[in-house]
Amino acid sequence: MDKSTLDHIDSNFERYVAELVSLIRMPSVSATGQGVRECFTHLSGLMEAMGVDLETFEVDGGNPIIVGEKSGERDDVVLLIYDHYDVQPVEPLDEWVRDPFSGEVVDGRIHGRGASDSKGNLMAYLSAVNSLEETVGLPITVKFLFEGDEEISSPPLEDFVDGHKSELSADSVVCADGDMDPSGRPMITLGMKGLLYVQLKCRVGSADMHSSRAALVPSASWRLVRALNTLRDESGRVTVPGWMEGKLEPTGVDMELIKKIPFDEDAAKEEMGVDGFLNDSHGVEALRDFLYEPTCNIAGLTAGYQGEGVKTVLPAEASAKLDMRLVYDQSPRRCLELLRRHLDAGGFSDVEVIPLGICEPSHTPVDAPIARAAATAAREVYGTDPVIYPKHHASGPDYLFSKNLGLHSIWTGCSPAYGNIHAPNEFTGLEDFRLGIRYAVEVINQFCLTRTSM
Amino acid sequence: MDKSTLDHIDSNFERYVAELVSLIRMPSVSATGQGVRECFTHLSGLMEAMGVDLETFEVDGGNPIIVGEKSGERDDVVLLIYDHYDVQPVEPLDEWVRDPFSGEVVDGRIHGRGASDSKGNLMAYLSAVNSLEETVGLPITVKFLFEGDEEISSPPLEDFVDGHKSELSADSVVCADGDMDPSGRPMITLGMKGLLYVQLKCRVGSADMHSSRAALVPSASWRLVRALNTLRDESGRVTVPGWMEGKLEPTGVDMELIKKIPFDEDAAKEEMGVDGFLNDSHGVEALRDFLYEPTCNIAGLTAGYQGEGVKTVLPAEASAKLDMRLVYDQSPRRCLELLRRHLDAGGFSDVEVIPLGICEPSHTPVDAPIARAAATAAREVYGTDPVIYPKHHASGPDYLFSKNLGLHSIWTGCSPAYGNIHAPNEFTGLEDFRLGIRYAVEVINQFCLTRTSM
Repeated sequence: MDKSTLDHIDSNFERYVAELVSLIRMPSVSATGQGVRECFTHLSGLMEAMGVDLETFEVDGGNPIIVGEKSGERDDVVLLIYDHYDVQPVEPLDEWVRDPFSGEVVDGRIHGRGASDSKGNLMAYLSAVNSLEETVGLPITVKFLFEGDEEISSPPLEDFVDGHKSELSADSVVCADGDMDPSGRPMITLGMKGLLYVQLKCRVGSADMHSSRAALVPSASWRLVRALNTLRDESGRVTVPGWMEGKLEPTGVDMELIKKIPFDEDAAKEEMGVDGFLNDSHGVEALRDFLYEPTCNIAGLTAGYQGEGVKTVLPAEASAKLDMRLVYDQSPRRCLELLRRHLDAGGFSDVEVIPLGICEPSHTPVDAPIARAAATAAREVYGTDPVIYPKHHASGPDYLFSKNLGLHSIWTGCSPAYGNIHAPNEFTGLEDFRLGIRYAVEVINQFCLTRTSM
Repeated sequence: MDKSTLDHIDSNFERYVAELVSLIRMPSVSATGQGVRECFTHLSGLMEAMGVDLETFEVDGGNPIIVGEKSGERDDVVLLIYDHYDVQPVEPLDEWVRDPFSGEVVDGRIHGRGASDSKGNLMAYLSAVNSLEETVGLPITVKFLFEGDEEISSPPLEDFVDGHKSELSADSVVCADGDMDPSGRPMITLGMKGLLYVQLKCRVGSADMHSSRAALVPSASWRLVRALNTLRDESGRVTVPGWMEGKLEPTGVDMELIKKIPFDEDAAKEEMGVDGFLNDSHGVEALRDFLYEPTCNIAGLTAGYQGEGVKTVLPAEASAKLDMRLVYDQSPRRCLELLRRHLDAGGFSDVEVIPLGICEPSHTPVDAPIARAAATAAREVYGTDPVIYPKHHASGPDYLFSKNLGLHSIWTGCSPAYGNIHAPNEFTGLEDFRLGIRYAVEVINQFCLTRTSM
């Protein structure tokens, strides 16, 4: 990084912190709606003051979306930065040491809901663009996509992305909504699992009955148990025919990255309170399963009497909530069809399948330019190799960028690993934020270099 | 029946009704304790006034038990009458047309909680003994066992029976707590199913986790589903080795009785809202299964998230409540051992089995003197064959008499089939009560005759 840019960050750091604090002081709780629009207006104002070309969009059933653009020296290289301005609810309020929206700066920390998730990340990129522009110049064009519904699963985002492909056209995407690895090293994630969430429901009879009728009347609960039992084998593998079609296996390079992920197996088991992992897997194999195995999880079971003691009832209805993680490039819609077909073929046409949630899996290769750029930037700024997850263990909107927009996409942010996100007393460190601005500068610089050298 | 006894019943009927009404007016809700002791005192007074030798017993954790005896001409023939003086709660109160404890006599009905279940049955026997005594004389000795905890499953009764065998010594037992068949014919039941009620509980990990960990951590819910699936086959048969040992099959005579039980299969299916019965059984076979098949019913299933919509959670705990009906002479305690052994042998030692309820199955042969006596009495009084159930489909304390005391025992009462027991607006008919007194007289007379002829 040019020394002038580095110095500019330091000499303007107080201002950048003040701008972040001003954003934290605007509550923007998407779950309740508290303050979201005021925060949106404030953020739009900050961005306009920085000279970002802004377009804001009202969306059905959601909060306004901001799309910004700052032209750089090369307008043929465009990096899209995704983040969100909404925050989690603050409850339980009485566990906060200070006002959740105080934005107080104390003992090297910037306190408040959203400091880490994700206003700090968002402001790091805005600050980085500002410092580049006011020194060596912004080398490439940077676009911003900031939404206000991330904490409630981004209901309007897919339609918005699909409907605004030209406004969002770019070469690659950085999803800045991320934090550091617990080891203190920066973390880069490439692709997420998908999700098919369904409820299976069985019903027999018009109402719950006295259980003596179990000798006479078929049981909804037993139908459910029997149907469930056909879905997954002892090892955890989904046994629905065709389920694993298209599933990506980790490459040798992926396995090398997995080996480098810090993983204290004993500490993990102790924290979880388990003696062993599924299939007695250990170390690298356990991590590989964690990142690369589809799941069929029973998130909930419901039937009949669930109180204390004894009730002799034959329940008319039984249901299970299944969350099934999918790995690129399993298709949740295709899997939903396969599940229905499998149940029908097994004589379970009476078992209702109610889809409750669908999320596509996603993939960005480890040698994608933006992945290489971020890794180089991480080494430059933090003086250490980043922890690279070739896949994330959970699900998220990454497919909107990597699949719907067809772009390479990475997730990486500067929030501390222990910043209490989604919990009371959220904060980010002043130094985390300062390094985050530098990291954002270097990601932009390095991405420009990967494009130059191509 | 001697005409003098018949006339005595009629000429004293107003008094007998008044005594029943006085008993209904004493609330005796065992679930809440409301009025139970006052009702006990009142009933004891009524019995003493009739010249019954009384002994009353305070019991740990229960309401007082009344044991009475009225010596008859033959003191070598003793019939024990079992019934209860407690009643069900009256909720929902706003669905009652009149005060639940009014005891109002309107339009040929005696109204109030307990009128049918079971104060009417109880008073029919006391009235019968009184009318016999005041006319032709009581032919045999009659004993009474009246408890105050039947509606809460009689917790103290087993210990009491076991500890007072000499006070309760008798030739046979009539459990008067019964009602008429919906066809309007009297009903006689010989033996009940037993019950083993357990909770199966699986636990993995110290707390619920994010469901992405399902690729890494074994699942309590899946352990439960898998364990459950080993317990029962598609036909409903319990697959635990040794489970069916000792189970009685219906004899030819039993099957003849079953054929005579009124059973409108289509109406039953419509009322239950089912298209077919288990194993597509019909008619006599369906009734046989209902009365003679053990069950393994899932009364409840509980795990994880049971609210609306989506929660991606890996539940740390999953449990099932199983109510397993047993047929004479399966042993619930032995079955509990077999269940544990079966789970262990199948690799499910981690599945906890918590016994929550045990009830022995029972049996009285159809040619038992008291069964023959009651059938003859029913024909005499009601002018129709009784409906005889060689076994009851549900469970109850019958084993205390047939097994612990080693006596023949039948269940038969005079309450109307549609007397709203356990529901608002309970009643018994004036004529039901009058016939009930006659029926009780004839049961006593006919039992005496069976003993004479032997």
